[in-house]
Amino acid sequence: MKNTFGSSVTVTLFGESHGAAIGAVLDGMAPGIPIDEEFMRRQMVLRQGPAALSTKRREPDEVRILSGVRDGVTTGTPIALLIENTDTRSRDYASLRTLPRPGHADYTALLKYHGYADERGGGHFSGRLTAPLVAAGAVALSALSARGIRIGTHIAACGGVADRRFLDVEADLLALGGRDFATLDEAAGEAMRAAIEAARAEGDSVGGVLETAVTGLPGGVGEPWFDTVEGVLSHILFSVPAVKGVEFGDGFALAAMRGSEANDPFTVKDGAVRTATNRAGGILGGITTGMPLLIRTAIKPTPSIYKEQSTVDLTAMAEAPLRIEGRHDPAIVHRARVVVDSVVALALCDLLALRFGTDYLKA
Amino acid sequence: MKNTFGSSVTVTLFGESHGAAIGAVLDGMAPGIPIDEEFMRRQMVLRQGPAALSTKRREPDEVRILSGVRDGVTTGTPIALLIENTDTRSRDYASLRTLPRPGHADYTALLKYHGYADERGGGHFSGRLTAPLVAAGAVALSALSARGIRIGTHIAACGGVADRRFLDVEADLLALGGRDFATLDEAAGEAMRAAIEAARAEGDSVGGVLETAVTGLPGGVGEPWFDTVEGVLSHILFSVPAVKGVEFGDGFALAAMRGSEANDPFTVKDGAVRTATNRAGGILGGITTGMPLLIRTAIKPTPSIYKEQSTVDLTAMAEAPLRIEGRHDPAIVHRARVVVDSVVALALCDLLALRFGTDYLKA
Amino acid sequence: MKNTFGSSVTVTLFGESHGAAIGAVLDGMAPGIPIDEEFMRRQMVLRQGPAALSTKRREPDEVRILSGVRDGVTTGTPIALLIENTDTRSRDYASLRTLPRPGHADYTALLKYHGYADERGGGHFSGRLTAPLVAAGAVALSALSARGIRIGTHIAACGGVADRRFLDVEADLLALGGRDFATLDEAAGEAMRAAIEAARAEGDSVGGVLETAVTGLPGGVGEPWFDTVEGVLSHILFSVPAVKGVEFGDGFALAAMRGSEANDPFTVKDGAVRTATNRAGGILGGITTGMPLLIRTAIKPTPSIYKEQSTVDLTAMAEAPLRIEGRHDPAIVHRARVVVDSVVALALCDLLALRFGTDYLKA
Amino acid sequence: MKNTFGSSVTVTLFGESHGAAIGAVLDGMAPGIPIDEEFMRRQMVLRQGPAALSTKRREPDEVRILSGVRDGVTTGTPIALLIENTDTRSRDYASLRTLPRPGHADYTALLKYHGYADERGGGHFSGRLTAPLVAAGAVALSALSARGIRIGTHIAACGGVADRRFLDVEADLLALGGRDFATLDEAAGEAMRAAIEAARAEGDSVGGVLETAVTGLPGGVGEPWFDTVEGVLSHILFSVPAVKGVEFGDGFALAAMRGSEANDPFTVKDGAVRTATNRAGGILGGITTGMPLLIRTAIKPTPSIYKEQSTVDLTAMAEAPLRIEGRHDPAIVHRARVVVDSVVALALCDLLALRFGTDYLKA
Repeated sequence: MKNTFGSSVTVTLFGESHGAAIGAVLDGMAPGIPIDEEFMRRQMVLRQGPAALSTKRREPDEVRILSGVRDGVTTGTPIALLIENTDTRSRDYASLRTLPRPGHADYTALLKYHGYADERGGGHFSGRLTAPLVAAGAVALSALSARGIRIGTHIAACGGVADRRFLDVEADLLALGGRDFATLDEAAGEAMRAAIEAARAEGDSVGGVLETAVTGLPGGVGEPWFDTVEGVLSHILFSVPAVKGVEFGDGFALAAMRGSEANDPFTVKDGAVRTATNRAGGILGGITTGMPLLIRTAIKPTPSIYKEQSTVDLTAMAEAPLRIEGRHDPAIVHRARVVVDSVVALALCDLLALRFGTDYLKA
Repeated sequence: MKNTFGSSVTVTLFGESHGAAIGAVLDGMAPGIPIDEEFMRRQMVLRQGPAALSTKRREPDEVRILSGVRDGVTTGTPIALLIENTDTRSRDYASLRTLPRPGHADYTALLKYHGYADERGGGHFSGRLTAPLVAAGAVALSALSARGIRIGTHIAACGGVADRRFLDVEADLLALGGRDFATLDEAAGEAMRAAIEAARAEGDSVGGVLETAVTGLPGGVGEPWFDTVEGVLSHILFSVPAVKGVEFGDGFALAAMRGSEANDPFTVKDGAVRTATNRAGGILGGITTGMPLLIRTAIKPTPSIYKEQSTVDLTAMAEAPLRIEGRHDPAIVHRARVVVDSVVALALCDLLALRFGTDYLKA
Repeated sequence: MKNTFGSSVTVTLFGESHGAAIGAVLDGMAPGIPIDEEFMRRQMVLRQGPAALSTKRREPDEVRILSGVRDGVTTGTPIALLIENTDTRSRDYASLRTLPRPGHADYTALLKYHGYADERGGGHFSGRLTAPLVAAGAVALSALSARGIRIGTHIAACGGVADRRFLDVEADLLALGGRDFATLDEAAGEAMRAAIEAARAEGDSVGGVLETAVTGLPGGVGEPWFDTVEGVLSHILFSVPAVKGVEFGDGFALAAMRGSEANDPFTVKDGAVRTATNRAGGILGGITTGMPLLIRTAIKPTPSIYKEQSTVDLTAMAEAPLRIEGRHDPAIVHRARVVVDSVVALALCDLLALRFGTDYLKA
Repeated sequence: MKNTFGSSVTVTLFGESHGAAIGAVLDGMAPGIPIDEEFMRRQMVLRQGPAALSTKRREPDEVRILSGVRDGVTTGTPIALLIENTDTRSRDYASLRTLPRPGHADYTALLKYHGYADERGGGHFSGRLTAPLVAAGAVALSALSARGIRIGTHIAACGGVADRRFLDVEADLLALGGRDFATLDEAAGEAMRAAIEAARAEGDSVGGVLETAVTGLPGGVGEPWFDTVEGVLSHILFSVPAVKGVEFGDGFALAAMRGSEANDPFTVKDGAVRTATNRAGGILGGITTGMPLLIRTAIKPTPSIYKEQSTVDLTAMAEAPLRIEGRHDPAIVHRARVVVDSVVALALCDLLALRFGTDYLKA
């Protein structure tokens, strides 16, 4: 399957950072879903992050919808989304083949593609490929939203600063809305930005943790083995560059609890079965309970740093110092947030279509 | 795909805890792999855990190989593995349909299967289904081992006690071997057992963290998007009951580091490219580097506890107290260890066959 | 995927002719479908064919349902179906490795499995593996029948004798019912049996053509490219041993027509859109029209014949004469009929579940 | 999977006849394969057919390679191929929603997409989408050719005229090369063209049969059940618009033979095992024998004809006469030939990569 994800709703990704164009094909979305191009545009901007914190390469990332949409509404056939690469400064990337950057895919690309891969700007591994993912995710998020399913992510931790946890999930998701540095607590957000600036000043970078919630999802979705909701979501979440950990509900913290503390007691609320707590993150036995999904993803620090590092000169097969030039971000966690929302939305569209049929998301 | 996992090497799981039998079909394994039935038997015993700590239900779990093996060697065709259920005490499980147990899949099974699922002993969701997974995993582990690929897991944390981390991975894996309560530090193991006993005495349970290493894996395996090694492994790891978190390398700890700390410097060792540290857990850009894979999984406490809990009586739609009778374990983390080894082995066989062809694991 | 077929409803096949057992795992069937064990038994008997025409090996083929069914109703979890091999006469099959039988898979098995495959009785390639396919198909046929979808097949041609085509499809399907040599015209059936006897008398065998109809299928099922109804059905139909051709509607005959003759005019019948003719076999653009599906499959003559044949002695790499001993059928076309019904039913359950959700076939 | 085909090498298709663009994403091709753009261009021209016989819509069909190729060589990452739609004359297609054309997908598109699909020029169902398939196929054909695997197709029958069968397959394939009306016998080709002209003169159309051969394929490729070579190839062949039948080797003709005639005797040639005849079309038990693959596909007559036809006015739910205006071909069989070569090449790349690993086709 490689660069295609999903069974009933699928997304296929292509492109290289410095090639002609990047894009995605989103297939299996129901017909009749209105496309909110303004929302898609805002998502693309959020992915770029606030100018103050972000890369100097700032392309407009204009998404051209080539197929599958007519008069602003999905037709039910594959939706091809194209972004031309415009700002591909000519620079010498040849060193990436002999001096692989620590923490990057330069070396593993050599092992896999035997030197044929386009290494410029990270090529196919570049975070730039999250742009078409976000465009495809915007379609999925719109469709889910029309069914009352809402997805949102905040920066739970960054640079040693922690945001507060979700309290009233519905209200918190509403508040996060279009924030370009999404924390629930504003002061925490300020402190995080300061930590990012401090890292940048030292030619270094920081990572962080994202916390995602999904509300309005029906119960009974997912499979008992293999295609558990956790399995399917983690599969696509680990595609997001820099993600190195995924947990659901209280995740690793559950490992330190007693069963009596970890189990969510069932209760009745407004005539419906709910759980009093939600340590399981809305999933039991791999299947949704109807409570909000809660997901946390660990984002490693941006591997591109200005500080001198140590690598191997592959020609000489000897250690060599490395200084990375060019434009790079001291943090991507705030930008990764919309990517996480996007892939979660794409995977949930697939799970819902498998469960309830291909017309489920039809408006 | 549901109860089938994999593309080239696949495993299909079936059965219910109190049905006639449980089993697995392992397909796509190369012909010519010797089956080590004694090793399979030992793995089945390790899955049951030491009698002192484990469930009172102790079936022999005899694996019958129905197909795909002849004269002790794989034929290349599907390997069906069957375990008859013998110790299915008749007990009244009907309450599971009206009084769903917190932390269990009783309630989500009702949502998904509309009351038709076999609820006895957890039915298809029962941890008992890990028995055929372990049997299939034993074939995969044998095949990988013959190619110099070794997989091992220790209990990194349990009941508030931490084991030491892997130091010399090769040596540590060797030492872990057939331990029935696998810690690297024996004193830590003793303290964990004491913590489990303490929980049991209170009618409660504990969880833990498992740390897995894989050595000998070639570099260049995995895909840049979607079918990353992390994505594929996490997908199947979340199938293991009670797993609520998965991280690779330093995982969530990376989120709190600076880039200069998180990046693994490349170095040369014995004429080969290696990394000086292994915070990335042997994976960059979703592709193996040739360094050991390092994986950590969070196991929530066994949801079956004797302490009184609160649930909902679905007939009356009102809260009701619940006391669970019967046999259950105060901890499963030490038993889950062989299940984790098994699913990692199965997924790696698939990735290797996709990369190098279906004959790759042929002896 | 190999020995697993389907996306939402899947079937996995395992076993060898002379191994311990053969079986199938049917996954993704909705919960709540009544299992008609008597119907399954009759299908198993039909697969064996009338004693007068069939192999001398006649095992009872008792199907044991190991999982996924409780109190005669599907639970929604995987249904494992097991048939023990009882009548595996010990005979010397070693010659199959050195003297491959023409028309059989002996030689290709050697190429693929490097001599490790179980060659006894054809091993995993044996027509015996259609027994679990028929058992799984019986579940699918029952489920479809409960939704008003009926599938039936007659022997359109055999040994140079042609049956009449379907006229009133509904009535013809009803008439075919449980016939053990299913022709629409009885005289044609008699002539076919005579042709089979004549071939047998000469130590030879005959093939034939099967024609299948499906009624009651909703329109709008199937995909425009790749997962067309024709593509999916042909994929599984070519799994039926000896099938070498598949056509839909008028198939190859369409190639000789003019467009004005081949196009089915639309018309209105009982307030619904229908076509006046059905040369397209109920499929346009890969998608069902709501008209009956019409499918024809070519079955090559049984390759096992008593007449002397020419093969290669692989040890000497020289041509050698071959006389096949043992029990074999002079025709299998009449037996293949229930296998064809079964695989069509399995594939349609998958297409319907993908289109309308996993509960679609729930009673 | 819908608009994606394959497991290891996959192709994803998108676009509508009168939308912005059409295209394909070809993923999983090995790195290091030279792209022969001139060959790709010739294939695109062959798909359009000779001007004398073909549609009046003649777009240049310029293929833009957006990714996965650098300096004329594959990188190993997804290859996106884009063709802008330039000649989309504005015409009124609204009638297709109320007066569905017989033999077309207008009506089934309505059933599936509930009126949201782009009906202009057939939309996503248009034969125009075979253009990106042919572009992707050109990459696959080049890669196979570099490994000595050759694929070629001739028009075996058209308008009541039959071409001769393959004799010396290698030589015949060579001779067919770039012929724009590919017959083995030139006189047959002339007679076919005359038959096409005759149909055109009457406002009618003709169909035909294509016969394809593949040489140089290694033995031992394919799976015994479900993923047989026949199953996989037929699956994708039925995606080619207008294909209504697929047979391998002697196909339906085998159904009328005796076993002694149908079985191909094994023999030794140049030190290798071959068969004296090739009625099985190079496949036994679903697996390649090493003999040439022989495939025949039935192409129905172009459904677009000028003659008056009968359809249903869906608004009035009453029969209505229909006259189709615009540009259409009296035959497509000669154009479908390169499409058939393309999809066969794509499916074989997938089967070979699954069998021998992803580097198999590396130059």
